Amino acid sequence: SGKEAAKPSGRVFAPYAIFKGKAALSVEPVLPTFTEIDSGNLRLDRRGSLMMTFMPASGERKYDWEKKQKFALSPTEVGSLISMGSKDSSEFFHDPSMKSSNAGQVRKSLSIKPHADGSGYFISLGVINSILKTNDRIVVPVTTAEFTVMKTAFSFVLPHLMGWDRLTDQDGTGTQRTTS
Amino acid sequence: SGKEAAKPSGRVFAPYAIFKGKAALSVEPVLPTFTEIDSGNLRLDRRGSLMMTFMPASGERKYDWEKKQKFALSPTEVGSLISMGSKDSSEFFHDPSMKSSNAGQVRKSLSIKPHADGSGYFISLGVINSILKTNDRIVVPVTTAEFTVMKTAFSFVLPHLMGWDRLTDQDGTGTQRTTS
Amino acid sequence: SGKEAAKPSGRVFAPYAIFKGKAALSVEPVLPTFTEIDSGNLRLDRRGSLMMTFMPASGERKYDWEKKQKFALSPTEVGSLISMGSKDSSEFFHDPSMKSSNAGQVRKSLSIKPHADGSGYFISLGVINSILKTNDRIVVPVTTAEFTVMKTAFSFVLPHLMGWDRLTDQDGTGTQRTTS
Amino acid sequence: SGKEAAKPSGRVFAPYAIFKGKAALSVEPVLPTFTEIDSGNLRLDRRGSLMMTFMPASGERKYDWEKKQKFALSPTEVGSLISMGSKDSSEFFHDPSMKSSNAGQVRKSLSIKPHADGSGYFISLGVINSILKTNDRIVVPVTTAEFTVMKTAFSFVLPHLMGWDRLTDQDGTGTQRTTS
Repeated sequence: SGKEAAKPSGRVFAPYAIFKGKAALSVEPVLPTFTEIDSGNLRLDRRGSLMMTFMPASGERKYDWEKKQKFALSPTEVGSLISMGSKDSSEFFHDPSMKSSNAGQVRKSLSIKPHADGSGYFISLGVINSILKTNDRIVVPVTTAEFTVMKTAFSFVLPHLMGWDRLTDQDGTGTQRTTS
Repeated sequence: SGKEAAKPSGRVFAPYAIFKGKAALSVEPVLPTFTEIDSGNLRLDRRGSLMMTFMPASGERKYDWEKKQKFALSPTEVGSLISMGSKDSSEFFHDPSMKSSNAGQVRKSLSIKPHADGSGYFISLGVINSILKTNDRIVVPVTTAEFTVMKTAFSFVLPHLMGWDRLTDQDGTGTQRTTS
Repeated sequence: SGKEAAKPSGRVFAPYAIFKGKAALSVEPVLPTFTEIDSGNLRLDRRGSLMMTFMPASGERKYDWEKKQKFALSPTEVGSLISMGSKDSSEFFHDPSMKSSNAGQVRKSLSIKPHADGSGYFISLGVINSILKTNDRIVVPVTTAEFTVMKTAFSFVLPHLMGWDRLTDQDGTGTQRTTS
Repeated sequence: SGKEAAKPSGRVFAPYAIFKGKAALSVEPVLPTFTEIDSGNLRLDRRGSLMMTFMPASGERKYDWEKKQKFALSPTEVGSLISMGSKDSSEFFHDPSMKSSNAGQVRKSLSIKPHADGSGYFISLGVINSILKTNDRIVVPVTTAEFTVMKTAFSFVLPHLMGWDRLTDQDGTGTQRTTS
């Protein structure tokens, strides 16, 4: 039944999507992963991220899923974004093959630049592929209201990306001690 | 018993209401809806909203429920509201019949304007009905303290309207992977 | 066992207390109450509050519990407090017997005034009892750090005082609809 | 199985770590402890803290765990940190043997100082041991983005350190009353 579909063990897909004339931006949290270290105890294995997916428009209210480009914001990059004032810029650089033999072949840069009148930002993802000799850029204009939704939701979700929501769920009754 | 009444499956009605001399404003979250896409997994179907209900006064401490007017703030409109400074204004326009054959018959506008002395805002809902030839406006003055309650509660509830509270309830142990 | 003591049905006492030379201030949330309106559904009956308890000192690191005075901040008063800048003042007035035949016999005022150098606030509770001909005032100086703890914890707890944490726990799968 | 490892009774280790050239800083919440006062009811026994662990570098991307130094931020010190503006400084002093016969032998000071250009802070821990005649200091430069992650996560976790997340989990149906 519908009710049982809401079991916490199921996955829930709820991207925050912004559709504009030339492109769309969809954002969704990716939760951290944990490793069991002994009976019932977990250690954070990999921090979560905020996955940003850009799609160019292919017509009126149509977007080309095949040409999508992704960029996963780390918790520290999320911290950078949520501390931005209305006149601040940010730029982040990722290499999807970092530390492998393919390092440097693909370079991604996510740029957030304020509108001149302070009414929002341009968020753009550039992808340079030196093997395919391609250089793509997808730009999505975002209003202050939309950016505030992102900042508020990102602030909410940041402790979850770090695994700190789980720290506070544990049973702390009478067993923990602080040392100074 | 009273205890069993608190089951999470039940609905809870807890509007935040502001009663003033000429009108009252009541605000309540409307949760998003989800669709089951496969066994146990859900997809956000429709985003939630903040339903604002305005009622004109019909006497001392009496309000005319029959003449109530409603306006559902979308998550992006909520983002606009919570980013307002003490001297900022906002205005939102809705057409309840948008994209239907009745589009344009009824036009609603929610306006938030600061008091000249920075001590709060006027929140007003205008409803123009071109069929009934009516033009109603209900205005509720809101203090800075009341607006702060709204901003704080709206910030809390915004991730829930987006369905992001459910993303973080899921079991992420060892199954999710980030790709960059 | 200790673990079972952590059952959610139990009450948890965790006041935030500030002990100073001449008096102490202890703050604790009081949750809202609900009424069952039909099978499994609840309606907010009475909003919660933040109970502030003031105690004068009776010696070094000793406080006189017998002479304590209480003041329950409403959600709107909490909104007023958390919107205060470092140079703002607030004052709230309560009559514990409001709307009864004893109205006016006891008048309480909670005052929050900034230090001249912006390093914190004086929080004081005045109680005038016209029957007993008493006029008491208890003042507690609070640092910016302590006030920030209060603002942060009050912001966290405010949606709970309003009952909005429960709205978002309910099962919204496929049953709710937004009307605009 | 992996799923059962996620039981809320297990502990979760998820430090937020910042690795820099000369030292690393790792931060992790320590939850409060509670005492059972009668059947099912709990009283906060000891407030939680944010444990900051500093480690000097011992080579490229290597840190000397043996030389680590710890400092536990109290809730009020957390309040001080999260209220810091980009040009503010903070300094906290701890004596791990306070109120014992060894008081004064070891003095720890945690200092947070802004970069001249507002691009972040230096967080440093000094430990003076008058018995061992040692005077150590470990300094970690922290960017604005990293500091924002800390502020956001600390704001999230602060009510948990105070035990206020548990207050709001209790069943408040029809039993609590506010007195003013």
